[in-house]
Amino acid sequence: MLDQVVLIAGVTVMGVLEQAYFSLQVIYARRKYSVSPPSTSGPPEFERVFRAQANCSEYFPIFIIILWVSGLFFSQGLSALCGLLYLYGRYQYFRGYAKMAHGRLAPLYFCAKVLWVLIGFSALGILGSMCRFYLDLDLKQLASSI
Amino acid sequence: MLDQVVLIAGVTVMGVLEQAYFSLQVIYARRKYSVSPPSTSGPPEFERVFRAQANCSEYFPIFIIILWVSGLFFSQGLSALCGLLYLYGRYQYFRGYAKMAHGRLAPLYFCAKVLWVLIGFSALGILGSMCRFYLDLDLKQLASSI
Amino acid sequence: MLDQVVLIAGVTVMGVLEQAYFSLQVIYARRKYSVSPPSTSGPPEFERVFRAQANCSEYFPIFIIILWVSGLFFSQGLSALCGLLYLYGRYQYFRGYAKMAHGRLAPLYFCAKVLWVLIGFSALGILGSMCRFYLDLDLKQLASSI
Ligand SMILES: N[C@@H](CCC(=O)N[C@@H](CS)C(=O)NCC(=O)O)C(=O)O
Ligand SMILES: N[C@@H](CCC(=O)N[C@@H](CS)C(=O)NCC(=O)O)C(=O)O
Ligand SMILES: N[C@@H](CCC(=O)N[C@@H](CS)C(=O)NCC(=O)O)C(=O)O
Repeated sequence: MLDQVVLIAGVTVMGVLEQAYFSLQVIYARRKYSVSPPSTSGPPEFERVFRAQANCSEYFPIFIIILWVSGLFFSQGLSALCGLLYLYGRYQYFRGYAKMAHGRLAPLYFCAKVLWVLIGFSALGILGSMCRFYLDLDLKQLASSI
Repeated sequence: MLDQVVLIAGVTVMGVLEQAYFSLQVIYARRKYSVSPPSTSGPPEFERVFRAQANCSEYFPIFIIILWVSGLFFSQGLSALCGLLYLYGRYQYFRGYAKMAHGRLAPLYFCAKVLWVLIGFSALGILGSMCRFYLDLDLKQLASSI
Repeated sequence: MLDQVVLIAGVTVMGVLEQAYFSLQVIYARRKYSVSPPSTSGPPEFERVFRAQANCSEYFPIFIIILWVSGLFFSQGLSALCGLLYLYGRYQYFRGYAKMAHGRLAPLYFCAKVLWVLIGFSALGILGSMCRFYLDLDLKQLASSI
């Protein structure tokens, strides 16, 4: 069974590494701008790095969850590919946001689009599985037989 | 194996859609009350929407994790049902909190109760599995034979 | 298949209980220091409890994700053990941070080390699986035959 998830597991570990990198950037920014916990406010340069990591952390579980559902129910390869694109987009988001608030927008739209694709894959895959299990209907076969 | 998780996967995708809806509400509130990132403070109307989404995001991974453990180890159908109740409760929480701070309380208690049920299911299911695997003891059979 | 994840599922439920405990501490602190939602600022005593829970919540999905990948691809027993150590470290983190900001540092370093071990396990496990599936190469056998 593990061979059906090994690629998305690989993307998952890369995602964890990316989150670790973002966290480290917040720790460095705390030192550089002398913002000691529990405070979270400081110069805009600090707040942009802080919020960039907060936003990425907020979406990280959503991304991983939909990546796995899409990988299990639709296609491992396509999902892993979308996963890589998302991680790349988040890296651009973090860098763009850290530079200036406006810099977060283009990569955010890109990431959102990738998430919608994964949501679409998941919905299709689950629908197909439900038809197979509960209606004994194979959508794939049906589509190809038309 | 996928037929054993297809219902909770369906609830999971609905949860992701709900989180997407909450995020969009924050983006609209940011525009409406002119609160530009990285700032997160503004009029109470904005802060309630912002915090409602933050609170839902904080609990989302916990919810999904316990939903899957409960679905895998206890009962898929019952877990999926609890999942739908939780998502409904969170929608009420978001709307209630956005209107006034007090409006978040009743739905929050409801959601917390659903989570405790899922935690209970998970604990029972894991206990049963452990007895079966490590003590070769079938609790279900034992209970029905008494 | 469930016997291969029952231990990490057990650690997962313990983690969920720990997060519930942290959330309750924030609710008590809100009452004690009269910090009504949506506000998140108050006396330093409150802010330390608030941030301690926020930080634990931020890392919780990352921890659970890497726990499961490591448990599935490397070793269930070792991963579950690391999981227990992490949960213990997070408890110390919360208590230390609540007392004084500096008290968070030693447990945080400990938790970070445990996470790195789980990341290492996951990477090794995934690499091994990939070699097996895609190159038909069994690294374990190779290592033991040298
Ligand atoms: N927590 C987010 C939820 C919505 C969201 O993802 N917003 C995008 C577009 S405005 C963003 O980049 N937010 C910046 C931030 O979270 O600091 C927020 O506060 O804005
Ligand atoms: N992060 C939460 C943790 C505890 C919690 O879930 N509190 C409930 C009841 S006071 C809540 O609705 N909090 C509002 C909020 O998070 O803004 C908090 O700051 O309060
Ligand atoms: N969100 C974290 C990301 C980095 C992190 O984990 N920092 C550690 C070491 S400075 C911490 O304990 N932060 C305290 C906090 O999050 O309140 C932060 O704001 O600091």
